[in-house]
Amino acid sequence: MSTVASVTSLRSRHLLGIQDLSSPEIDLVLQTAFVMKEVGTRPIKKVPTLRGRTIINLFFEPSTRTRMSFELAEKRLSADTLGMTTAGSSVSKGETLLDTARTLEAMSPDMIVIRHGSSGAPHQLARICRASIVNAGDGLHEHPTQALLDAFTMLERKGRLAGLKVAIVGDLLHSRVFRSNALLLTKMGAEVRACAPATLVPAGLAGLGIHVTSSLAEAVDGADVVMMLRLQLERMQGLYLPSMREYFELFGLTPRALERAAPDAIVMHPGPMNRGVEIDSEVADGPWSVILDQVANGVAVRMAVLYLLAGGEGEGGDK
Amino acid sequence: MSTVASVTSLRSRHLLGIQDLSSPEIDLVLQTAFVMKEVGTRPIKKVPTLRGRTIINLFFEPSTRTRMSFELAEKRLSADTLGMTTAGSSVSKGETLLDTARTLEAMSPDMIVIRHGSSGAPHQLARICRASIVNAGDGLHEHPTQALLDAFTMLERKGRLAGLKVAIVGDLLHSRVFRSNALLLTKMGAEVRACAPATLVPAGLAGLGIHVTSSLAEAVDGADVVMMLRLQLERMQGLYLPSMREYFELFGLTPRALERAAPDAIVMHPGPMNRGVEIDSEVADGPWSVILDQVANGVAVRMAVLYLLAGGEGEGGDK
Amino acid sequence: MSTVASVTSLRSRHLLGIQDLSSPEIDLVLQTAFVMKEVGTRPIKKVPTLRGRTIINLFFEPSTRTRMSFELAEKRLSADTLGMTTAGSSVSKGETLLDTARTLEAMSPDMIVIRHGSSGAPHQLARICRASIVNAGDGLHEHPTQALLDAFTMLERKGRLAGLKVAIVGDLLHSRVFRSNALLLTKMGAEVRACAPATLVPAGLAGLGIHVTSSLAEAVDGADVVMMLRLQLERMQGLYLPSMREYFELFGLTPRALERAAPDAIVMHPGPMNRGVEIDSEVADGPWSVILDQVANGVAVRMAVLYLLAGGEGEGGDK
Repeated sequence: MSTVASVTSLRSRHLLGIQDLSSPEIDLVLQTAFVMKEVGTRPIKKVPTLRGRTIINLFFEPSTRTRMSFELAEKRLSADTLGMTTAGSSVSKGETLLDTARTLEAMSPDMIVIRHGSSGAPHQLARICRASIVNAGDGLHEHPTQALLDAFTMLERKGRLAGLKVAIVGDLLHSRVFRSNALLLTKMGAEVRACAPATLVPAGLAGLGIHVTSSLAEAVDGADVVMMLRLQLERMQGLYLPSMREYFELFGLTPRALERAAPDAIVMHPGPMNRGVEIDSEVADGPWSVILDQVANGVAVRMAVLYLLAGGEGEGGDK
Repeated sequence: MSTVASVTSLRSRHLLGIQDLSSPEIDLVLQTAFVMKEVGTRPIKKVPTLRGRTIINLFFEPSTRTRMSFELAEKRLSADTLGMTTAGSSVSKGETLLDTARTLEAMSPDMIVIRHGSSGAPHQLARICRASIVNAGDGLHEHPTQALLDAFTMLERKGRLAGLKVAIVGDLLHSRVFRSNALLLTKMGAEVRACAPATLVPAGLAGLGIHVTSSLAEAVDGADVVMMLRLQLERMQGLYLPSMREYFELFGLTPRALERAAPDAIVMHPGPMNRGVEIDSEVADGPWSVILDQVANGVAVRMAVLYLLAGGEGEGGDK
Repeated sequence: MSTVASVTSLRSRHLLGIQDLSSPEIDLVLQTAFVMKEVGTRPIKKVPTLRGRTIINLFFEPSTRTRMSFELAEKRLSADTLGMTTAGSSVSKGETLLDTARTLEAMSPDMIVIRHGSSGAPHQLARICRASIVNAGDGLHEHPTQALLDAFTMLERKGRLAGLKVAIVGDLLHSRVFRSNALLLTKMGAEVRACAPATLVPAGLAGLGIHVTSSLAEAVDGADVVMMLRLQLERMQGLYLPSMREYFELFGLTPRALERAAPDAIVMHPGPMNRGVEIDSEVADGPWSVILDQVANGVAVRMAVLYLLAGGEGEGGDK
């Protein structure tokens, strides 16, 4: 499954979005993640690569899996980690994002991982910081490490990305996961079908070469991968959808709906899942599901990203 | 004080409750804790035993002493620790406990320490996780490391558990501390007297061989150990008790009430204390009190538990 | 810039306030901080000095920069750090500060860093703890590490403290930063001018040899350092000030107001800033500003304080 990537380093010291990565760079991250995944199988799951480096995790939005996945990746690379969440911070005293960033930057961290509700927040940081900035999700814009771990999971299961038929189903309009996946998969030569109620389709998908449909059957037909997106109930507010029940009937993934997919199709979900809304429990827990592989691979992919952004070097031997 | 335990390992890789431990296993934990306590007296209070192992601390209820005690124990064993509290987590996005657990488990932690408001939550985790699960308090059910540290403190002070006369006083009905202590002490041959207002006595104590009384004088009479329970004011709501003042008069531990105990009796409390409600400050801070020993011993006992659950091995020499 | 200090250790094992430090001790901290600052410039920003030591960070008030600065300093010295904030702690169960402190102390930490809303809280801890107590800000009383990092920044930029003309402008009445700075600077022979609306001037400044004025022009005239204090909007409540706009007109630092200062004057602010209230953005981001140097120096100064309180020794070689 693992091949040799055609570049040996990333051009930017930041990871702001899939948009900025070339396909050889994406390939480099994925190949590096295969090496990192092996570290996670050792009894001592730790390498000294980032020892003495400081990473600040700046989460302005609630998060469990992404925050813990990054923190684990950082600790497995032996970095020193510091966390900051909005509660109890100077942000609650009205400080601007830029002043917060300048202040943190003055403490000379090597990297800042940021999740923020505003699209472009990590880009603002990148303009003023010497530290490497890693986008852990910005508004409706991008969530690049999620797309990379999704691609890694597909590659691990299917051996390739080029030519894969990938259906992505759900609230496309509000999903940075969709956006980053769409950018990555089209770059890598996959065939993407996007499926959503008409009210939840963003403009401009045709330009990316993505086939848009409101028919789940059409999207799933012959698909190698079916990726369900989380319905962000807190954002729906009755504006976009008539009812959850109706949504499940039309767009919820059931074993029945999966019958049209390729016989060895895999089912993905970035989590947390709304069981019975966008996905049936029988599918979520069934043989198709690689949802927990995605979580496991998240740690390896983030280790790869941090390692490569740090310059791909670090201490040689075992600590 | 320290003797050789008759078993050399625990049968289960989880610690869910005192109920599942045999008396030789309890003995093994206590003897191991004596060794761990010595580590805490060194200038460098750290052994490399769990280096490269990952422990997730999952606290769904507020906690200071238990959370910090576990975290300290983990750090003194050189483990990598990750914390998750309910605030700002995907739990607030409505994810179920099982989906949260499956997600965390996918990140391959070696252990998960969980405190949860529902009895049996750790058992649910144990059914689906390869990680060792440690119960740090589940609903009204058990709090096994508290009972172990209490037993360690008695052993340290009295040299034995068998035959000790132990009075446990307070809200027995809502106390997982009482439940775990009652199970442990009866297993180890101590004589337990339980004392509470009639409205706060759980059913089935006689079956455990526990003497129940509503008279503080009777419970304390000749006791070697008097353990006061925290009155969980937030749960009382006037339903169970007429007034705090009346409670203190009948069940509060004062120097006067202690006169009936054995001359060298010790006083215990799991904390945090309500001074002037269940315990008089003169007792809490007096010569009988081993309340702060309990806190100190908590770290050693938790180190012992984590060490034994990890298989009792780990790196040999000093880091 | 760096000279040899005339003492080689601190007399107290606590840092409770500038009040307790002699000028040779202040000098020792500042000289040690120059050494620590160098560590922060290495690729591996870590020394093994406090390996195996435990430091508890106890923040009862919201804080970003101070908490993260201490945590970074601790990690760069290889200490094990534990954090406790008020939310989700036993403090929310009504435990007193002293019982919390006794409990933490029983876990044998080597140091406790405390920020608390009540003046004197760290002193209470120092009376009952064997651990070294570091005051990270107590009520309206002191914030000694802030004054030390401010002095370090002046020394770094101006080469001396004695004879420096320092204007401190803003809410003097509610500012522990002002109090600690006033104590330190007068001890070290600087000339302090304090400037505030008459309603925001504390009593007793003349006794310290501080010149008080309500004229910004007079305070700034010929000053080598202009230190702006944060207007704590949450405490103002219309009681002390007519309006923010009027405050800015009279006391806000603008390029115009700075014209009266020495040609090479520097501008300081402890952060977080209220841009457009006490300081104009053009000044905050201009060539005079050393505000981000203050943040950077904070880590080095706190490393020096922790190192000296630990006895100035620790492990010799590199880890």
